[in-house]
Amino acid sequence: MTLDDIETPAVLLDRERVERNLQKAQAYADSHGLKLRPHIKTHKLPHLAARQVELGACGITCQKLGEAEIMADAGLSDILLTFNIVGPAKLRRLKALAERVTLAVTADSAATIDGYAGTFRAEAPLTVFVECDTGMGRCGVPTADEALALAQRIDAAEGLHFGGLMTFPAAGKPDEAARWLDEACRKLKTAGLDVPVVTSGGTPDMWRAHEAEVVTEYRPGTYIYMDRSQVARDACTFDECALHVLATVVSAPTPDRVVLDAGSKTLSSDTLGLEGFGFIPAYPEARIASLSEEHGVVDVSACERRPAIGDRIEIVPNHACVVTNLFDEVHFVGSNGHVERVRVAARGRVD
Amino acid sequence: MTLDDIETPAVLLDRERVERNLQKAQAYADSHGLKLRPHIKTHKLPHLAARQVELGACGITCQKLGEAEIMADAGLSDILLTFNIVGPAKLRRLKALAERVTLAVTADSAATIDGYAGTFRAEAPLTVFVECDTGMGRCGVPTADEALALAQRIDAAEGLHFGGLMTFPAAGKPDEAARWLDEACRKLKTAGLDVPVVTSGGTPDMWRAHEAEVVTEYRPGTYIYMDRSQVARDACTFDECALHVLATVVSAPTPDRVVLDAGSKTLSSDTLGLEGFGFIPAYPEARIASLSEEHGVVDVSACERRPAIGDRIEIVPNHACVVTNLFDEVHFVGSNGHVERVRVAARGRVD
Repeated sequence: MTLDDIETPAVLLDRERVERNLQKAQAYADSHGLKLRPHIKTHKLPHLAARQVELGACGITCQKLGEAEIMADAGLSDILLTFNIVGPAKLRRLKALAERVTLAVTADSAATIDGYAGTFRAEAPLTVFVECDTGMGRCGVPTADEALALAQRIDAAEGLHFGGLMTFPAAGKPDEAARWLDEACRKLKTAGLDVPVVTSGGTPDMWRAHEAEVVTEYRPGTYIYMDRSQVARDACTFDECALHVLATVVSAPTPDRVVLDAGSKTLSSDTLGLEGFGFIPAYPEARIASLSEEHGVVDVSACERRPAIGDRIEIVPNHACVVTNLFDEVHFVGSNGHVERVRVAARGRVD
Repeated sequence: MTLDDIETPAVLLDRERVERNLQKAQAYADSHGLKLRPHIKTHKLPHLAARQVELGACGITCQKLGEAEIMADAGLSDILLTFNIVGPAKLRRLKALAERVTLAVTADSAATIDGYAGTFRAEAPLTVFVECDTGMGRCGVPTADEALALAQRIDAAEGLHFGGLMTFPAAGKPDEAARWLDEACRKLKTAGLDVPVVTSGGTPDMWRAHEAEVVTEYRPGTYIYMDRSQVARDACTFDECALHVLATVVSAPTPDRVVLDAGSKTLSSDTLGLEGFGFIPAYPEARIASLSEEHGVVDVSACERRPAIGDRIEIVPNHACVVTNLFDEVHFVGSNGHVERVRVAARGRVD
């Protein structure tokens, strides 16, 4: 199969760029004594998770039980599930998963910890991290004192083992997160609690991860593919973006406008604070101005030349992770032009 | 299966509301002598497409070949494909589809028409509509003169049959669309061309469809489920919204904030011009303030009471169509509480 055989819209993955991105991040982590625990949400592909581990990752990160189950099925054996697992059905699945892989999970409330404690026994304890809100304003305890209280609650539960502190920091504010975690670690240690692991994440600030001495483990996700939002945040260049959406020009109704067969069902509506919905390397002045589900409207008024109906063009999306969730299959393109189609095994695992 | 057996996040469909929405729209169309050709992108379910036809629809609308193929497989026999079909691989699929259903398609350029003309023969001609840009600024010829030129090109092609004019009008501007179509019809008729069908669409303005006498056929999509954006545009009330997303509160880190296990992978990032990412009927003052892929952050500062960790709540999403594309399965809930899980057969048909 070659590029010409691919119908659009489709996801193309540059095999060499993927490998280079993986190696670069692992080398960075190794050189700073950081453990790497990649978030598989970006690719949702077991063979890439296995490659991440082969290159030196200490394990993988998943956000959904369903994604973790797919990875466990494929032989991945060390998983951190960075989500509050709540309710009897999910706790049963968590227990079953813990019986076949080395599993850790997070909590940011007594209620969630009590759910874990009621499910696990001392013979086979569950490792639980306390999730800390170091500035993101999503999940996580808002103060170091609350982190201490929850760590103590985990430590006191027979079936649980305190794993350490976990955060997903606000983008662009790794220093703030480091100060928060420093204070929390001091409090926990003063209270006699060991903090085995402090885990942080996020691709935008990953190349500064070593500046926070308190952090022992890092969980980047997007770094494997990169995207337009990461370029905007100086985490990479467009030449490092491994995921492109291949689209066809299906309409050119005015001199200033062409329409692609890639809309929000392909690129998603994520802007991540950017203007427009993707970058077209072959037409850098073009602006993907609006999306319907199946149409991408491109303003080509600033372009010297414009693509014609039937032309196929590649798009760097704003956000790679959400794009892979929209496709049943992706296409790996080798430097020899050979194309391999791969099913996205953990796509659509919403629960 | 009952509601309690459903793991979150999940899509719930109120079976009675679905049926009422279908009947109301068909009765409206019938009372005004309008043909109804529902767009199946909203539900992507063959059994609902069949029900739409059973109630009186003249056929269905699809936007993707892949969706049309799934519908044809299920026995739907009259399909309008409102998309420019471009390129040899897709034209082959179009030909194969035309051999098993009554098919019509659209074009807004000579290049697209020539692709059809090169594929179809006089013995089994393809019906082609001219897509008109009546104000939306997406696909479609921008002037009535261009509509005439393309209609003549279709009419002159041996393997093609001119089907009429098609538009997807700008929301809130049906009058503008009607004036555009009136002028185009006059020009075509003056030139000796019959215009068998004039087809328009869009749920927001569907209850005004009869005001445009030029329109003979209407293609609403969202009306079957309705959503928050349609309430905002006065096309329905929240009591008519048949699609809800069931989510669980997984975190309550501050008095003002709870976090749901429904993020952009569940609700999508579509705002459709609205503030926030959905409406929670049980907590009408709550505001779904931001989404990550797996988290929905809800501002509950204006609520008298707030949900607790483990509570399950229902959300009316901004945009129903994109939500059904994110789920492999949806759940139909009957008035007796019985739940039936159904696979979304045409989900993810991106091409």
